[in-house]
Amino acid sequence: MHTSPFLGELIGTMVLILLGDGVVANVVLKETKGHASGWIVITTGWAFAVTMGIFVSRAFGSVDAHLNPAVTVAFAVATNDYSHIVPFITAQMLGAFLGAVLVYIMYLPHWKVTPDPAAKLAAFCNAPAIRQTGANLTGEAIATLVLIMGLAGISSKALGVLAIGVGPYLVGVLVWSIGLSLGGPTGYAISPARDLAPRIAHALLPIPGKGSSDWRYSWIPVVGPIIGAILGGLLIRAYTL
Amino acid sequence: MHTSPFLGELIGTMVLILLGDGVVANVVLKETKGHASGWIVITTGWAFAVTMGIFVSRAFGSVDAHLNPAVTVAFAVATNDYSHIVPFITAQMLGAFLGAVLVYIMYLPHWKVTPDPAAKLAAFCNAPAIRQTGANLTGEAIATLVLIMGLAGISSKALGVLAIGVGPYLVGVLVWSIGLSLGGPTGYAISPARDLAPRIAHALLPIPGKGSSDWRYSWIPVVGPIIGAILGGLLIRAYTL
Amino acid sequence: MHTSPFLGELIGTMVLILLGDGVVANVVLKETKGHASGWIVITTGWAFAVTMGIFVSRAFGSVDAHLNPAVTVAFAVATNDYSHIVPFITAQMLGAFLGAVLVYIMYLPHWKVTPDPAAKLAAFCNAPAIRQTGANLTGEAIATLVLIMGLAGISSKALGVLAIGVGPYLVGVLVWSIGLSLGGPTGYAISPARDLAPRIAHALLPIPGKGSSDWRYSWIPVVGPIIGAILGGLLIRAYTL
Amino acid sequence: MHTSPFLGELIGTMVLILLGDGVVANVVLKETKGHASGWIVITTGWAFAVTMGIFVSRAFGSVDAHLNPAVTVAFAVATNDYSHIVPFITAQMLGAFLGAVLVYIMYLPHWKVTPDPAAKLAAFCNAPAIRQTGANLTGEAIATLVLIMGLAGISSKALGVLAIGVGPYLVGVLVWSIGLSLGGPTGYAISPARDLAPRIAHALLPIPGKGSSDWRYSWIPVVGPIIGAILGGLLIRAYTL
Repeated sequence: MHTSPFLGELIGTMVLILLGDGVVANVVLKETKGHASGWIVITTGWAFAVTMGIFVSRAFGSVDAHLNPAVTVAFAVATNDYSHIVPFITAQMLGAFLGAVLVYIMYLPHWKVTPDPAAKLAAFCNAPAIRQTGANLTGEAIATLVLIMGLAGISSKALGVLAIGVGPYLVGVLVWSIGLSLGGPTGYAISPARDLAPRIAHALLPIPGKGSSDWRYSWIPVVGPIIGAILGGLLIRAYTL
Repeated sequence: MHTSPFLGELIGTMVLILLGDGVVANVVLKETKGHASGWIVITTGWAFAVTMGIFVSRAFGSVDAHLNPAVTVAFAVATNDYSHIVPFITAQMLGAFLGAVLVYIMYLPHWKVTPDPAAKLAAFCNAPAIRQTGANLTGEAIATLVLIMGLAGISSKALGVLAIGVGPYLVGVLVWSIGLSLGGPTGYAISPARDLAPRIAHALLPIPGKGSSDWRYSWIPVVGPIIGAILGGLLIRAYTL
Repeated sequence: MHTSPFLGELIGTMVLILLGDGVVANVVLKETKGHASGWIVITTGWAFAVTMGIFVSRAFGSVDAHLNPAVTVAFAVATNDYSHIVPFITAQMLGAFLGAVLVYIMYLPHWKVTPDPAAKLAAFCNAPAIRQTGANLTGEAIATLVLIMGLAGISSKALGVLAIGVGPYLVGVLVWSIGLSLGGPTGYAISPARDLAPRIAHALLPIPGKGSSDWRYSWIPVVGPIIGAILGGLLIRAYTL
Repeated sequence: MHTSPFLGELIGTMVLILLGDGVVANVVLKETKGHASGWIVITTGWAFAVTMGIFVSRAFGSVDAHLNPAVTVAFAVATNDYSHIVPFITAQMLGAFLGAVLVYIMYLPHWKVTPDPAAKLAAFCNAPAIRQTGANLTGEAIATLVLIMGLAGISSKALGVLAIGVGPYLVGVLVWSIGLSLGGPTGYAISPARDLAPRIAHALLPIPGKGSSDWRYSWIPVVGPIIGAILGGLLIRAYTL
């Protein structure tokens, strides 16, 4: 069988969401080994979910390893080449959906023992700490803009060829940083695929005692990151970072 | 005296289990400096136990530094070369047993002051958060599959020669990630040697007030990781990662 | 548009303060995802704020990426070249001010729900754990001296060319270390721009229920770090580190 | 002025103890920013204290950057060259003493507000979790043996030239690992200088309300690490690691 950028984006995003939503499940679901182990566990878990998603994505054929529609949009805007948008985002959405299904399977005994529907939803997608449309949208846009600027910085040609083995680790550190510092208000989706595809999985999967999939909020982690991504892409293009 | 792959696997796995079971002992046993310091301590401790096990293993002669029968099985399946299976797994089991004995010696004053037999067993081997054979087996298989895919990604030829000094660190980060994100349901054995050999040590050692060695569960951290390893090996072979 | 050292210092310091003050906001403000998540979150957040500030700063044109007037002063003293002092510190102050404004916007819903004015001020600038002028000044000077010595060590020519991608990470680790170990008494400003510019932002911004900007303390995180920087610069010059 | 191995060992060990004892002071003394922030803070702080001590030590002229009499003894035994023992250990003891004095100055306002004399002593040197001479001595010897084996692994010639910038980070990770996993029983002195010199400082400094310097225990963190170091040195020599 052949590796390909499509397969790499799909499998890489699947691993990213399995590990990323997995750490949330570990912290918020009841009777897990990591129950209530706090923000340092969640942010470290998401950081390395990204690092490992990139390694796996590259091995399966995606040299770019975006794993995030916002990254794909930003680099499309930056390079004025929009050809990757449809295939990459399709692969990312499929991968994120499969990753969420794997989290459901991985934590199978724990859904029933967790009474709170909001905790169960949190293992799939984001809910804001305080619900305010404008602030939530702005927050996701700013956090995603920092993601794109950070990626531009890490991969900047001005810095010389980055050691390939260290690159995915540094991108993980970038996401660690965003989570620790900017994750407070909305839980840092910073990716439409990371939020929307697992939300669809939450709606479809037979999770015992689940509540609403909170569709009312669902457009914010899609639109906010895309705004940030477009701003970031324009910035990269303007300054030829 | 001579270094050799056998010696490298043995000493490396010994160090891995001394440091890995050591951090659990530190967190679960009573009156230690790290008592009840939580999931971030356990997962960070296991991550660097792997990193340091690999460094020591290589110095003693195992360039591959598997330290885990699941890794040995996966790469045997991937390469269709089964010659390392018996010597490597023998060395890993012996090393893991010795590592568990060293944890017993290291934490000698703390067994007596810890009343809970389950806590004492946890410093040797895994117990599931919720006991469900199918889910526990599936969970160990998935987590081990992620381990193998991550290793394939980190060491992928497509990525160029990975800086040797950084490689063992990145493998530690991979295990950190798996622990944080997938360790919730079963405590992530992801290695038959990591669970079975210390369980045998628990059964044999004169631990004051110890309880059952929970043999009923013992086959799951053996069979689950091997299933994941075979799947991972087939995947590597199919895609020539 | 053109990148430049001025723009790099400005944008880099903006990102540094957005991420650095952001993590404090996340921990001290009410109803955030990271509320009360402790010193490990704050110090890790500041560490990677520095790492990411440097990456972004370099991409926008500042190869040196000081992001801190104390660093600029120290290297001016060390090299006896004071030409960068005015432009770099101007850029750093502007960037730090803009970063603080972004934190205000990012955490917009959380100012109102946080009753304690001291918590709100802490998301902008430092307050000492115990207020004692001499000890606070000495503490900031010592911590900044360690910063300069660490920077000299990391970038020392005797060590060969440091891998560019790893350098910003190691500087982050240096700040992590200082935060963990020396942040106890004053909260480690170790930079006049990091404290003074956000303090001005605190005074100017319409933060609901804010208290005093504590101008009485404000000179210490300016003078202390500059003393440490001058001592560090003299040390580098004396020993040609 | 000239850098030299002696100066490098002295200044490097001073920085190591300032940062290492500093993090303990931050966690155990009252009214600090990091009060009671737990084992993850202490072990991370000590890890990067080592990393930064090495960077500074190298910049001031010690290419080897032992910073620990146990390391000096181990490599003397391994290479059968004992010429460094007296000058290096002298420098390390002086540096460790000065580092402890700096911690005293750094945390000056916090000694008076901390009523517990044991907490104040802990910011200087080690006390065992459970006092048992044989177990404490054995524990320090095992932990130091792991330190030496890990150092041999990290710097092994078989692994090729380790990237210089990454080396001190990896040694920090080694000490992180030992702290997390083996620090439970005795608090991991793993260095005579780290314990004895700050203990002398504790005895001499005018710390308000200080108690005994616990001289009864003081020989264990000296003799235990030296036993581990000799065993480690013999192992390196026997296997030409």
